[in-house]
Amino acid sequence: MTAMSDLKPLIQDLVIANRILAREDVVDAYGHVSVRHPDNPHHFLIARSLAPDLVGPEDIVALDLDGQPVRDDGHKLYLERFIHAAIFAARPDVMAVVHAHAEDTLPFGIAATKLRPVIHAGSFIGSEVPVWDIADQFGDTNLLVTNIEQARDLAVCLGPNNVALMRGHGFASAARSLIEVVRMSVYLPRNARALMRATQLGGEVKYLSEGEIAARNRGYSPYSVETWRTWEYWANKADCGHLLTRPDDLPKT
Amino acid sequence: MTAMSDLKPLIQDLVIANRILAREDVVDAYGHVSVRHPDNPHHFLIARSLAPDLVGPEDIVALDLDGQPVRDDGHKLYLERFIHAAIFAARPDVMAVVHAHAEDTLPFGIAATKLRPVIHAGSFIGSEVPVWDIADQFGDTNLLVTNIEQARDLAVCLGPNNVALMRGHGFASAARSLIEVVRMSVYLPRNARALMRATQLGGEVKYLSEGEIAARNRGYSPYSVETWRTWEYWANKADCGHLLTRPDDLPKT
Amino acid sequence: MTAMSDLKPLIQDLVIANRILAREDVVDAYGHVSVRHPDNPHHFLIARSLAPDLVGPEDIVALDLDGQPVRDDGHKLYLERFIHAAIFAARPDVMAVVHAHAEDTLPFGIAATKLRPVIHAGSFIGSEVPVWDIADQFGDTNLLVTNIEQARDLAVCLGPNNVALMRGHGFASAARSLIEVVRMSVYLPRNARALMRATQLGGEVKYLSEGEIAARNRGYSPYSVETWRTWEYWANKADCGHLLTRPDDLPKT
Amino acid sequence: MTAMSDLKPLIQDLVIANRILAREDVVDAYGHVSVRHPDNPHHFLIARSLAPDLVGPEDIVALDLDGQPVRDDGHKLYLERFIHAAIFAARPDVMAVVHAHAEDTLPFGIAATKLRPVIHAGSFIGSEVPVWDIADQFGDTNLLVTNIEQARDLAVCLGPNNVALMRGHGFASAARSLIEVVRMSVYLPRNARALMRATQLGGEVKYLSEGEIAARNRGYSPYSVETWRTWEYWANKADCGHLLTRPDDLPKT
Repeated sequence: MTAMSDLKPLIQDLVIANRILAREDVVDAYGHVSVRHPDNPHHFLIARSLAPDLVGPEDIVALDLDGQPVRDDGHKLYLERFIHAAIFAARPDVMAVVHAHAEDTLPFGIAATKLRPVIHAGSFIGSEVPVWDIADQFGDTNLLVTNIEQARDLAVCLGPNNVALMRGHGFASAARSLIEVVRMSVYLPRNARALMRATQLGGEVKYLSEGEIAARNRGYSPYSVETWRTWEYWANKADCGHLLTRPDDLPKT
Repeated sequence: MTAMSDLKPLIQDLVIANRILAREDVVDAYGHVSVRHPDNPHHFLIARSLAPDLVGPEDIVALDLDGQPVRDDGHKLYLERFIHAAIFAARPDVMAVVHAHAEDTLPFGIAATKLRPVIHAGSFIGSEVPVWDIADQFGDTNLLVTNIEQARDLAVCLGPNNVALMRGHGFASAARSLIEVVRMSVYLPRNARALMRATQLGGEVKYLSEGEIAARNRGYSPYSVETWRTWEYWANKADCGHLLTRPDDLPKT
Repeated sequence: MTAMSDLKPLIQDLVIANRILAREDVVDAYGHVSVRHPDNPHHFLIARSLAPDLVGPEDIVALDLDGQPVRDDGHKLYLERFIHAAIFAARPDVMAVVHAHAEDTLPFGIAATKLRPVIHAGSFIGSEVPVWDIADQFGDTNLLVTNIEQARDLAVCLGPNNVALMRGHGFASAARSLIEVVRMSVYLPRNARALMRATQLGGEVKYLSEGEIAARNRGYSPYSVETWRTWEYWANKADCGHLLTRPDDLPKT
Repeated sequence: MTAMSDLKPLIQDLVIANRILAREDVVDAYGHVSVRHPDNPHHFLIARSLAPDLVGPEDIVALDLDGQPVRDDGHKLYLERFIHAAIFAARPDVMAVVHAHAEDTLPFGIAATKLRPVIHAGSFIGSEVPVWDIADQFGDTNLLVTNIEQARDLAVCLGPNNVALMRGHGFASAARSLIEVVRMSVYLPRNARALMRATQLGGEVKYLSEGEIAARNRGYSPYSVETWRTWEYWANKADCGHLLTRPDDLPKT
């Protein structure tokens, strides 16, 4: 028999992730973040239907890879929870998922210009950011991903990439850790703004090269001091520094 | 004899609506929100002449569909209250009205580009957003809607739509509930920004299709858990979460 | 012998004006606001050299129309106080002056596009907003208006208008009251943004007509309930609502 | 034997500099500011690896001009500390350095348009702002300056100028005092925004002349009342006004 993980630190991290995404304007009342269950890869943790800024540890529920609750305790769930389910199912390497509507990602979902990394902090979105249009397979909908079939189609579009834009709606991002998916989701609109403004200045824009994107990705560790620094900073800004659990393997200050 | 409604919850909701619109930068000292009287469709509730952010329950007055006070208690009234009166008179389906000057709606009132939904949260503005120019009927004015004739002309321009832009001034929006009109008024400038930025990127912009706008409208309920989520979130952000009254028919969390 | 005015309410208003301009991002550490002395038109009140956000009643000093202190109590003064002196000297109708660097006014001082009213709240800047270039008369300077000759040249450029942009620097605005000059200075960058964004949308932009600008100006009273509303709102936002003195001739609420 | 300086006031100033840069959105969790050691020009003071907003006096360490700690007390250091080391080594006139990623400087690092002063507050960036591309000498990297060779190459590109943009990354700025480097770093993105927006308005843009840039530079003193004013203002905004040490040679208020 395997000892079960103590979920408390992970749940606190998920609460922090919710609050950071709200504070950094990645989500408002809508949008959500999830993390794969450490003991069961077929389950994931996510908040019940609640604005991310208001989420506390008691609001976290476990869902399975069909988007159904592991234990039905009557909580109302996010309509679009299927996005998380389908990405966790299709991508065993992915440990955390965000779906959000960050304003400055929206123009790239409806215009012809491709979103690509132009700043080093944006490199983690990867060299290919596909745009998923729900209308291609499902015709006229309310644009929400409200069932597992739609979510699986989105996961196919995402493929091996880190971010898919969703036309007229927002984006889904996927990463190897909560810290990483939050960081990518915060820098995604920032990279989008840098690209928009450079485009408006006119002339050629210098994108990050494939080699640079690869070099950054190789050098990235979700538990380095540098990564921790931004997590700690954002948690404090979001008034939940008291929930921080410093990983044991970080050097003491 | 019919029992009168207890107005207290509705008045609290109207106070919340005022504070949310201020917090979300839809109104500043100017702009106002109203709700039709639940017992008398010929009356509506609105604040006395006061900045929305400072409105409390004691500042709410009842006006009739000519924009005149039901009971004259000497309060100074909004100069442009006629906008609300005329829209409630022309549109029996409308239960709540906002008039405001949200900054990013203004360019679409003075430029040739039409404002149309490009993001799902903007779908409720509808496929047709007419622009009313007060000068067309009334020549050189101070641009304010200060009498019932001007307001009726605006209501004619609004027609069966949800939003009319007012050239060089702002907009009027109309909906079936307070929650709905607040939500539409908050997402209106956000949709405007997405469209402006996509336009600046160059090339074709993908608008929401008529079918998508209709599908979203069909699926919308002002008292769903999803709608409540944003109302609760915004009320908390606007420091008036304590005024929230949760509808009886929402599932418990 | 004429009784002297009680200066306390005016000084409190001037403190409020300082705080509002800081809170609304019209000034930062630089920029200033002044009011003509009620008993002596050859004097005006302004803060000593201090960031407007930090100004209190004890920081207000009186200067003459050469920009020199009426009573030298050793306070360091704003380098650019001459702007106020020269405008008060040239324009007996002007009771209050602002000089500031509000960011979104700057592009119109360095580009060829003219700043003109496009929104009703921007009408008070008037149909003509001249651009003063200090280099025209004074060659290469540090761009600051540091003597009375430069300031008089600026006042000539301002002429009978309400606002002059200063190339590569900021603007000077002049009005008949503190409330009016603050209001104009807050809405000036807002009008600038609406015009910039409409221009970026492409096609013709509809400006306010001369008749509309005149109609708004005719209808304006610095002591109406509507004007008071925004003053009260901004003062509260700037955390100095407690300094407000409600004019006696406003209707009670 | 020379008496050693009391480092406490300088360390407090460095803490203030960290907090101001965070509050003014020049840095987030990343970016750093340093000051040359007053007693030993081969050493400089900088925070250990920590978000600038969280830095306190106890987090300041001394490094040498190879970027190595003067006394190894086990603190984790900024990966990019070499930027500071190389600039202090190459430029004896420089007393303080900032490296940051302020968002609105980024477009000018990736587009063809040159960043030049267009507003008086932006004059201190100087007439020439070179763009350093790490790829020119080092090929595909993660874009970070993680060794002294890369930093020396950046310092060569900076040359005698005050600011170098770093393609796809951010900027490095260098000045004769902490106050000056902070001020330049805050106004740098503001100048960038003014130039971007003027460019978008179309037509010719009026830049500051060489003579104006020189005149401003001549007139600048890091310890004048005017410079102090903005330092005091920003420190208060950043909630660290209590750390301010007023220089003895400033006139009393």
